[in-house]
Amino acid sequence: MPEFSPGLEGVVAAQTAVSEVDGANGRLIYRGGYLIEDLAPTVTYEEVAYLLWNGELPDKAELDALRKQMASARVLNKAARGALLSTDPATDPMDVLRTVVSAQGATKTLIKPTLEEAVALTAVFPTIVAAAHRRRLGREIVDPRDDLSHAANLLWMMEGEEPDVKRVHWVDSYLVLLADHGLNASTFAARVIASTGSDLTSSVVGAIGALKGPAHGGATLAARSMLDKIGSEANAEKWLREAHERHERFAGFGHRLYRTYDPRAKILREMAATAAPELHRTAARTEELALHILHEAHPERPNATNVDFWASVVLTGAGVPKELFTCTFATSRVAGWTAHVLESMGDLRLIRPASVWIGPEAGKKPPVLAKR
Amino acid sequence: MPEFSPGLEGVVAAQTAVSEVDGANGRLIYRGGYLIEDLAPTVTYEEVAYLLWNGELPDKAELDALRKQMASARVLNKAARGALLSTDPATDPMDVLRTVVSAQGATKTLIKPTLEEAVALTAVFPTIVAAAHRRRLGREIVDPRDDLSHAANLLWMMEGEEPDVKRVHWVDSYLVLLADHGLNASTFAARVIASTGSDLTSSVVGAIGALKGPAHGGATLAARSMLDKIGSEANAEKWLREAHERHERFAGFGHRLYRTYDPRAKILREMAATAAPELHRTAARTEELALHILHEAHPERPNATNVDFWASVVLTGAGVPKELFTCTFATSRVAGWTAHVLESMGDLRLIRPASVWIGPEAGKKPPVLAKR
Repeated sequence: MPEFSPGLEGVVAAQTAVSEVDGANGRLIYRGGYLIEDLAPTVTYEEVAYLLWNGELPDKAELDALRKQMASARVLNKAARGALLSTDPATDPMDVLRTVVSAQGATKTLIKPTLEEAVALTAVFPTIVAAAHRRRLGREIVDPRDDLSHAANLLWMMEGEEPDVKRVHWVDSYLVLLADHGLNASTFAARVIASTGSDLTSSVVGAIGALKGPAHGGATLAARSMLDKIGSEANAEKWLREAHERHERFAGFGHRLYRTYDPRAKILREMAATAAPELHRTAARTEELALHILHEAHPERPNATNVDFWASVVLTGAGVPKELFTCTFATSRVAGWTAHVLESMGDLRLIRPASVWIGPEAGKKPPVLAKR
Repeated sequence: MPEFSPGLEGVVAAQTAVSEVDGANGRLIYRGGYLIEDLAPTVTYEEVAYLLWNGELPDKAELDALRKQMASARVLNKAARGALLSTDPATDPMDVLRTVVSAQGATKTLIKPTLEEAVALTAVFPTIVAAAHRRRLGREIVDPRDDLSHAANLLWMMEGEEPDVKRVHWVDSYLVLLADHGLNASTFAARVIASTGSDLTSSVVGAIGALKGPAHGGATLAARSMLDKIGSEANAEKWLREAHERHERFAGFGHRLYRTYDPRAKILREMAATAAPELHRTAARTEELALHILHEAHPERPNATNVDFWASVVLTGAGVPKELFTCTFATSRVAGWTAHVLESMGDLRLIRPASVWIGPEAGKKPPVLAKR
């Protein structure tokens, strides 16, 4: 039996051409060989989703066709609408998303994952996220608009007002940057589920559940909550020193793979200066000090800022309420999840690892109930 | 970078004391060190679930307390009922289960997995499975009964009639035998999801999705469908020879871990002789011939009968419709899923494996849309 690597660190669990995290060099490569910093300034989320699914960027006609396909898939079906309206309005939006996506993708018989379903599931995320938000606020649900982009629809359905182009750009950029990231835990969960021959909705629903955790998608909210507690540039040093003495982890720092600055964090940091100038100042001072304190304590560890830290600032500037941060992450990553599942169909093999028994030796006899 | 083991075969992904598949010796060990063949004849599903969760079999008082706790958790809440009633009655019962469990377990804020929630989720499965079945038949949903066992409640809510004790015993035995099985794909999916710090419902919902696949929980239905096609003892040889010539896989044979007869299959085979005598004869002849044909073709491979083959016969004898086989599997395995998640809480570490990049070299520049 080989050695146990907790968390499967360093264990290769897939071969993929969807994306690659080259953590040693701080590079993120998207399908086709694009570096994220080359891709992000020139494409929209719809184009990136097309790229992840198809392996090439769309031309004008292909992009128009995808936009039409997504527009027609933004409406909830009867099962999904019923599930949505039955939830308590105060329900965690990630739980609403998990339930309503499951209902939306339910079928009469098992259907193998298809590109069409990937497009449809991706298209409907903003509808569900925005509806969950509106219900929390006790307001009417807003229907999607065919003339708006994916990012614009998210803001439109959240607010019921024509969204500002700058805010749409920030949301869209965020969606582009987070759309895929190698074999992260939620993508891996999606691939494990797909490996049994199950359907695409099951994979996506499982991935939503994985993303929800604070060690994964929940980290963006944690970063913002920390910044909220710090409150100002002036308070950063005091807060961080005290938190460090309490042995509290700093939210938004460290990643299993990056040994240098996360390229997505770099792009978001620049964007944050315009999107949320005041929070950017607090965040920049927090980052400087946090990296310093962490380096003092653990000079051997690479403690680079992760994407969640600066994403929390950009999303704040874009007007996304923090309760929706994890859902917005899911709204982006679903393109990656579905691309990975479709890729895995090419050579499907049940993912069924081994375990090591740490229980007592076998052979204990069960006493009958009366004698226990 | 270490070598790639497709399907993570042989890769250790967890240390566990919940159960151990000793495939080389054809042994299945449940928590505490009990061999499945010692445990199965003496305990009910409730006792096994208690064992998997707590590490010890319950005494009379503990078992009574668990039964009461389960009885009070069998009713659907408003969100779950709404989600259930919104589904098309013809929906795949596994998709109904996935959606309604997600709704039932939705919360306002993230709650760490607890034993109480494990009990509640396990308790509610028969309610959902039976309701999905009743809706398929266009019949009224039947409420659970506090005076009936877990297995009896499943049959009661499916049929609305006092279930026969023998049939309850067969269902209960099936539930005991399938309750856990090392790091199978659905349990692994549950642990991957839990590893991000997510909630128990998210893990269970992901596991339902994984179990749905034909390479996992869907295999019991596949075995029954094959037996249906074979139709009779007399037809077995002709059908199997022809299927083999068509290079069709025989459903119900082979397992990644067992190198000898699956101990659960052995118990179910014996039970099937009483539960479904006619189907047992067809199945016994089918097994004999299938093993012979497979051995002729691949003498190097261990081609032992797996649990799904004989489970399909016992469930048929117990009167469980084949459309509910995978759901009934889930109704059993949820005890194992939740036990594994609770165990993993002790030393939670993000499961985030590595991947190997098989895409083109990085550095390709994206052309602007107008130039594509």
